[in-house]
Amino acid sequence: MNSSELLEKLHSIDRESLYLERAASVLQWDQETYLPEKGVQERSEQLALLEGIAHEKLTSPETGRLLSELGSSTENPCGDEKLPEMERDFLKVLRRNYDRAVKLPVDFVSAAARAEGLSQAAWVAARRDNDFSAFLPHLVKMIDFSRQRAIYWGYSDNPYDGLLDIYEKGMGVKAISEVFTPLGKKLGELLEKISSRPQPDNSFLDQEFDVEKQTSFSRDLLKRLNFDTSRGRLDVSAHPFTTTLGSDDIRITTRYLERQVQSNIFSTIHEAGHAFYEMGFPEELRLSSLADGASMGIHESQSRLWENVIGRSRAFWEAMYPVLCSYFPGPLSAFTAEDFYRAINLVEPSLIRIEADEVSYSLHIIVRFEIESELFQGSLDPAKLPEAWREKMKELLGVEPETDAQGVLQDVHWSMGSFGYFPSYALGNLYGLQFWEKLRSDIPGAETQIAQGNFAPVRDWLRDTIYIWGCRKDPSELLKIVTGKSLSAEPFLDYIESKYAGIYGF
Amino acid sequence: MNSSELLEKLHSIDRESLYLERAASVLQWDQETYLPEKGVQERSEQLALLEGIAHEKLTSPETGRLLSELGSSTENPCGDEKLPEMERDFLKVLRRNYDRAVKLPVDFVSAAARAEGLSQAAWVAARRDNDFSAFLPHLVKMIDFSRQRAIYWGYSDNPYDGLLDIYEKGMGVKAISEVFTPLGKKLGELLEKISSRPQPDNSFLDQEFDVEKQTSFSRDLLKRLNFDTSRGRLDVSAHPFTTTLGSDDIRITTRYLERQVQSNIFSTIHEAGHAFYEMGFPEELRLSSLADGASMGIHESQSRLWENVIGRSRAFWEAMYPVLCSYFPGPLSAFTAEDFYRAINLVEPSLIRIEADEVSYSLHIIVRFEIESELFQGSLDPAKLPEAWREKMKELLGVEPETDAQGVLQDVHWSMGSFGYFPSYALGNLYGLQFWEKLRSDIPGAETQIAQGNFAPVRDWLRDTIYIWGCRKDPSELLKIVTGKSLSAEPFLDYIESKYAGIYGF
Repeated sequence: MNSSELLEKLHSIDRESLYLERAASVLQWDQETYLPEKGVQERSEQLALLEGIAHEKLTSPETGRLLSELGSSTENPCGDEKLPEMERDFLKVLRRNYDRAVKLPVDFVSAAARAEGLSQAAWVAARRDNDFSAFLPHLVKMIDFSRQRAIYWGYSDNPYDGLLDIYEKGMGVKAISEVFTPLGKKLGELLEKISSRPQPDNSFLDQEFDVEKQTSFSRDLLKRLNFDTSRGRLDVSAHPFTTTLGSDDIRITTRYLERQVQSNIFSTIHEAGHAFYEMGFPEELRLSSLADGASMGIHESQSRLWENVIGRSRAFWEAMYPVLCSYFPGPLSAFTAEDFYRAINLVEPSLIRIEADEVSYSLHIIVRFEIESELFQGSLDPAKLPEAWREKMKELLGVEPETDAQGVLQDVHWSMGSFGYFPSYALGNLYGLQFWEKLRSDIPGAETQIAQGNFAPVRDWLRDTIYIWGCRKDPSELLKIVTGKSLSAEPFLDYIESKYAGIYGF
Repeated sequence: MNSSELLEKLHSIDRESLYLERAASVLQWDQETYLPEKGVQERSEQLALLEGIAHEKLTSPETGRLLSELGSSTENPCGDEKLPEMERDFLKVLRRNYDRAVKLPVDFVSAAARAEGLSQAAWVAARRDNDFSAFLPHLVKMIDFSRQRAIYWGYSDNPYDGLLDIYEKGMGVKAISEVFTPLGKKLGELLEKISSRPQPDNSFLDQEFDVEKQTSFSRDLLKRLNFDTSRGRLDVSAHPFTTTLGSDDIRITTRYLERQVQSNIFSTIHEAGHAFYEMGFPEELRLSSLADGASMGIHESQSRLWENVIGRSRAFWEAMYPVLCSYFPGPLSAFTAEDFYRAINLVEPSLIRIEADEVSYSLHIIVRFEIESELFQGSLDPAKLPEAWREKMKELLGVEPETDAQGVLQDVHWSMGSFGYFPSYALGNLYGLQFWEKLRSDIPGAETQIAQGNFAPVRDWLRDTIYIWGCRKDPSELLKIVTGKSLSAEPFLDYIESKYAGIYGF
């Protein structure tokens, strides 16, 4: 076979494995949105089977043979230098996935998938009942599975490095600590400065915002952001998320709380940011493994850019506040866009990550990053997690949860075995502002457009500059391609400092 | 390996193939309910892949080897006589599915699947454009593929027997004709009698029934019928259906038409009847191929029993009419339960099967059965179908379609090559009344209970007498086990005669 025949075969295997993964995503999406309560048990068996088959396909000897014949090896993943760049990127990504997958035994993969299904269900109940001890055995299993995974994959220093590498290629504990430690310090100082100033009034947000009207508003909002409902949908789940069930089937969820209209608004914008990324991959990548974000952090840069930098900006609410008022004239008629802008940007260290303001958010991540580091170094006993959580929250944010439901049980990630995922959120903040700095220099009128409700220039720039690459490039490479720079917290800190100096007057 | 080890292996293959089919059902359900418009194309690729893998698993040489080692052959499907009865039934069902699947060459299966896709699309366009000639070449192909399928499977007399056997094991043209011919005659006579009498007034059903309230009412109705929402759900689709996504995940759909409240009510009850069957399989069958209806006809007996015999009875509306009125006081306050009962039982021969009343419904089926028989005997040229349709409709129902869209093109079945399916609907009516006769003799107070809104005795009887068998027994065997009798139209005709004599006063 010549190389184009070999590539065609490899693309066909890749496509089938993608179809199976997306079929599994349909089952998972359904589990989070519509699955009847008692269907969970069998669903986890169905998912384990699908994931097992996708894994088998990806790790078949044929995949390995084709990769080798195309010159791709662990040391030289891109293969033959004469191949087009796109195909070399494809080989790199496939080689990486293949190497990762073949190192995990099939039985291990299905056992882990099955345990994850049960663990997630147990977490839901434990959080509801504020009962950490009911979740602990599942959590211990999730940690063991993750540690075992890191061992299978191999790591040089700390098993946690092996896990971080899944979400943020090339980033280890050391590299992340080097950015997070000074970031935490600066944010802590800023938090102190802010807490000494008079606070904006956000009490008017604590009114009844009819859930039906919230539903209509979030649909309207998505329409104005040009979310394409012929290629996606919005549903409701306990924890908002985005998932890709097909190249033209990208779904987001939100949740509606009657007395917290902002929860729905910013969940919707956040998940739309993820969805724009997934919807924006160019046609030629869509049915391949290259149709993916460059990393979880780059993915978060998109959601958090839309949610915070755009969605919590003065310009955004200049355009959108009149629309919001048309849905909620009762609760909002006495307040201006500026009142609303200040209210949604109130900085107040609190217990729940997903409700955190922009300044303290990254500190929530640093708490989790430090805990995960200690868990995988073996210096923290999982049974002691609630205590460790309370201590770190107090140290970094100055607040302490009274219940585990508001503490260590608040996030779904650990129940799914997604250790190493959290740092991506804070990295997303940093990447996002590096991209934003470049976008503003490329489109000087971006904010004016936003203030007029025209989001197209920003969306198109993101698509043509970032989404166009899919996961062809590692995050640091992509950052270099787009901005010409390496990872830096500076643009983020500059943005935070200037925005909040404006709001808090210092 | 001893026989219990062999059985365990076979059960494990069977279970995996079931999980894959149910995973495919999740994708199909989603396609009918929530899939964004542009997601359809890739979804069909995902489904084809899943179904291919399930088929491969079922037809693997290992399945054949295990069946043989357990003594199961085409001639002696139940295997070794020393095995427990349940396992012998399992082997029988698996052998049947295996034989059916392996007898079709892979090339034939994919050629047929491709042709079916094109044929269905052509049918949609032909029905829209009322253009039978555009559909004809596809229809001819569908007939050829079906005939070829029957040849691969083998048949003794008429290839149509081989097709009927898929849906109604053991029933051939001869057996069905023997029942359908006198049934058609009796129903025709009854129809004439009815048409000479004054008609009930159903014009008050043609009012606005708010869709939101219809939604609430159908949920309330399901609750009163004890539909277990921890093991199932109700959603909306263009064409109502029931599907099993897991042993504890059985879903039904309905549709809401503002000026046809009865469409939603009877769709909901009909699909609930299917769902009760699927939910009622005993624990020990649930994760095997035995967790299925005994036949399409037996399945229809359950949906049609609930929809018509129970759902269109005076007793049912004695309990439910006050509930319905509480949702729709406006449209209904001037009418009594008796008015409603008479309105929903209006008999009026019409062109469209799915809108037919209880008396003329089976006549629609007989039209299709006679046409299918002639097509496969070769005595009817497919090009002459529109004429044949008009003649038979006139002969049996006294009405004649003006367009083919309202005639021969109205149903999707033939465009998918599902010849032999239609008779199950009418057989369902007959089985249903045979079961009902026995139920009433076992529970003399059944109707009194229904009139008090207590559906538990009926539901429990059906579960303990019919559902308990899954598909362990062929329909005629099951009928014998439950009622002690063979197939007969008498109970159905007695029921129809007595009910409509009451309504029409003859």
